[in-house]
Amino acid sequence: MSDFRKDFPILEKEVYGKRLVYLDNAATSQKPNSVIDTISDYYSSDNSNIHRGVHYLSEISSEKYEKSREEVSNFIGAGEPGEVTFTAGTTDSINQVACSLKSILKGNEVLVSGVEHHSNIVPWQLAGATLREIPMDEGCNLLPDSIEITDKTKLIAISHASNVLGSVNPIKEVVEIAKEHDIPVLVDAAQSIQHMPIDVQDIGCDFLAASGHKMYAATGVGVLYTSERFGDILPARGGGGMVDRVTLEETTYLKPPLRYEAGTPHIAGAISIAAAIDYMQDIGMDKIREHEHEVYSYARNKLLETDGVTVYGNTKEMCGSISFNLDGIHHYDTGLILDKMGIAVRTGHHCAQPLMRTLGTEGTVRASFALYNTKEDADRLLEGIEKVRMMYA
Amino acid sequence: MSDFRKDFPILEKEVYGKRLVYLDNAATSQKPNSVIDTISDYYSSDNSNIHRGVHYLSEISSEKYEKSREEVSNFIGAGEPGEVTFTAGTTDSINQVACSLKSILKGNEVLVSGVEHHSNIVPWQLAGATLREIPMDEGCNLLPDSIEITDKTKLIAISHASNVLGSVNPIKEVVEIAKEHDIPVLVDAAQSIQHMPIDVQDIGCDFLAASGHKMYAATGVGVLYTSERFGDILPARGGGGMVDRVTLEETTYLKPPLRYEAGTPHIAGAISIAAAIDYMQDIGMDKIREHEHEVYSYARNKLLETDGVTVYGNTKEMCGSISFNLDGIHHYDTGLILDKMGIAVRTGHHCAQPLMRTLGTEGTVRASFALYNTKEDADRLLEGIEKVRMMYA
Repeated sequence: MSDFRKDFPILEKEVYGKRLVYLDNAATSQKPNSVIDTISDYYSSDNSNIHRGVHYLSEISSEKYEKSREEVSNFIGAGEPGEVTFTAGTTDSINQVACSLKSILKGNEVLVSGVEHHSNIVPWQLAGATLREIPMDEGCNLLPDSIEITDKTKLIAISHASNVLGSVNPIKEVVEIAKEHDIPVLVDAAQSIQHMPIDVQDIGCDFLAASGHKMYAATGVGVLYTSERFGDILPARGGGGMVDRVTLEETTYLKPPLRYEAGTPHIAGAISIAAAIDYMQDIGMDKIREHEHEVYSYARNKLLETDGVTVYGNTKEMCGSISFNLDGIHHYDTGLILDKMGIAVRTGHHCAQPLMRTLGTEGTVRASFALYNTKEDADRLLEGIEKVRMMYA
Repeated sequence: MSDFRKDFPILEKEVYGKRLVYLDNAATSQKPNSVIDTISDYYSSDNSNIHRGVHYLSEISSEKYEKSREEVSNFIGAGEPGEVTFTAGTTDSINQVACSLKSILKGNEVLVSGVEHHSNIVPWQLAGATLREIPMDEGCNLLPDSIEITDKTKLIAISHASNVLGSVNPIKEVVEIAKEHDIPVLVDAAQSIQHMPIDVQDIGCDFLAASGHKMYAATGVGVLYTSERFGDILPARGGGGMVDRVTLEETTYLKPPLRYEAGTPHIAGAISIAAAIDYMQDIGMDKIREHEHEVYSYARNKLLETDGVTVYGNTKEMCGSISFNLDGIHHYDTGLILDKMGIAVRTGHHCAQPLMRTLGTEGTVRASFALYNTKEDADRLLEGIEKVRMMYA
């Protein structure tokens, strides 16, 4: 595995006179030159609105936009590009599903795991559903066998990987059980799509949501996979580009994916996702997983061996994030001191308050990894932690 | 007025061996170097998620993001930055309002003008409202005196300027009448904010929606102004960054604007809006209006003088778009031939089917202007039209 830092201009940066160690990848990833250049080039030489134009630039933009949809479709193993909608991000994707399914969900129940991000909780509440947690063990391993499905259960909405713990949920097992009861499953892949190969047909889910900005692409863009059998649900939003015939009395809609993309989409953002996928695929998703696993395990094991450190979660498969606290030291203080050493981590509840209650803490320090992180970064983190502990000793 | 083309790299482009004449600005505007560089610089040296981070990059990003909110707030004359929400675009802004006000709108009535874009029609239909048009005269001048407000009227939703005709609606008069009945007004400013100074407090509207990409900024970002008196409506979307306390049973929300910005926003896009505003303000909005008015009137008058051309709409104030058709020649064919001469226009119904029915046509050719367009561009268009007419003679 070569050093990929060189492809990411921001990683050249010094922070407080130290080489930046960026370990806040679960919040957002950095962008390789190829992605940044794709965005600049788009605005400098191709920019136009798509679909509805007859002119040269509009055709180029439309082609690149649809090409990106195809790439996403292949990347996640969708049946066809029409199953991929561009959205504003994972949160937006989930909200769109919640809004589209509102009439089914209202007064009924959505099952979630105990490690969900607020973005996989609040949309279902706004849709009028009640939420119930699938049980998990002390290490935060989900227990699919204890899934209890009632007449009121209309959806299972579950993260592939936790943004807090890095725990990977056994989504295929969950989907198998859901299928026995004909319950659709939504997978929040915001914390997995950048770390491992994803195949929606193999998983068997009906919806999958992900963000561009966490997978090395632009901010403000995401994807929503919708399986063919949900391809004619009511659109969550109305506007240009998604309608067939509009009168003041009645409107008819185009087929997906256009039906779900009201208004001018984030064209540059969608195209940047294709550039990010190209970048990842040039390395290879298996190789990314392997390299990240090595760095992740190295960091986690070292943390587990360090006195006075509590590491949260312990599941069969893990990736991305490691959450921990130093005994007697507030997570916020730890984060602030690490920052002064040029180490960027995130602290707080990580938009997962229900999980924080389960863990019995108000917040954690979270170090989260991406393909450009190395064992040297992990060592810098561990040195930093040692210094924080000494300062408070 | 100097030549601003030099600030827009795409305008250096040749299309089919001819200098590009870009007259599709109502669909999307081109971006000046300062905006493109702001986006690249953001991703190359500042990129981080905002608000919830304690580290250096996160602080820089948060500062720039909030600084942009302040700039938008000043640019539109809002009472305070908290009244400005960043959205995914005008369509998204309107959909958010429709969703938030759904319980009020359902089964009731929204008044619109006869020139609305589908994005100011379909969201209200999806919210369960019926729509009624405010009458207009033959030139498409809105007739505010004929506004009829009933017990069922809960909102007036009206475009500031038509994306098809360039007609400017008398929104201040409409707001005055609405205020007498305590009816809120939403202004769709997608086609005006780039052409003239806007002051929401002077207008007196409760909501104003606009898109970044039509005002020289990034795709996938927009703004929604919400007056203080609607500052505590239900959020349309749920997720991270907008909640106070989350349990599986109940969630409480932060105050605006965070309440309306679920999930990671389009940070780079929001920051690009500040760069675009800086660019426009360096020229001066009054000067932009003056220059555009000169070019627009020149083009429109020449078109009116041309035999065999029907120009649609004739209102007291006009800006941006001119819609026309050549007698006996399909708008699509006109657009295709103009394209081959390097002139980018848009053809079709322009997402305004109800207006097309009023005009008695299936579509028009639309030439739409921005600050970088010149009388030379208008001459190229007129020459092009002459050639199209000769080809069909």
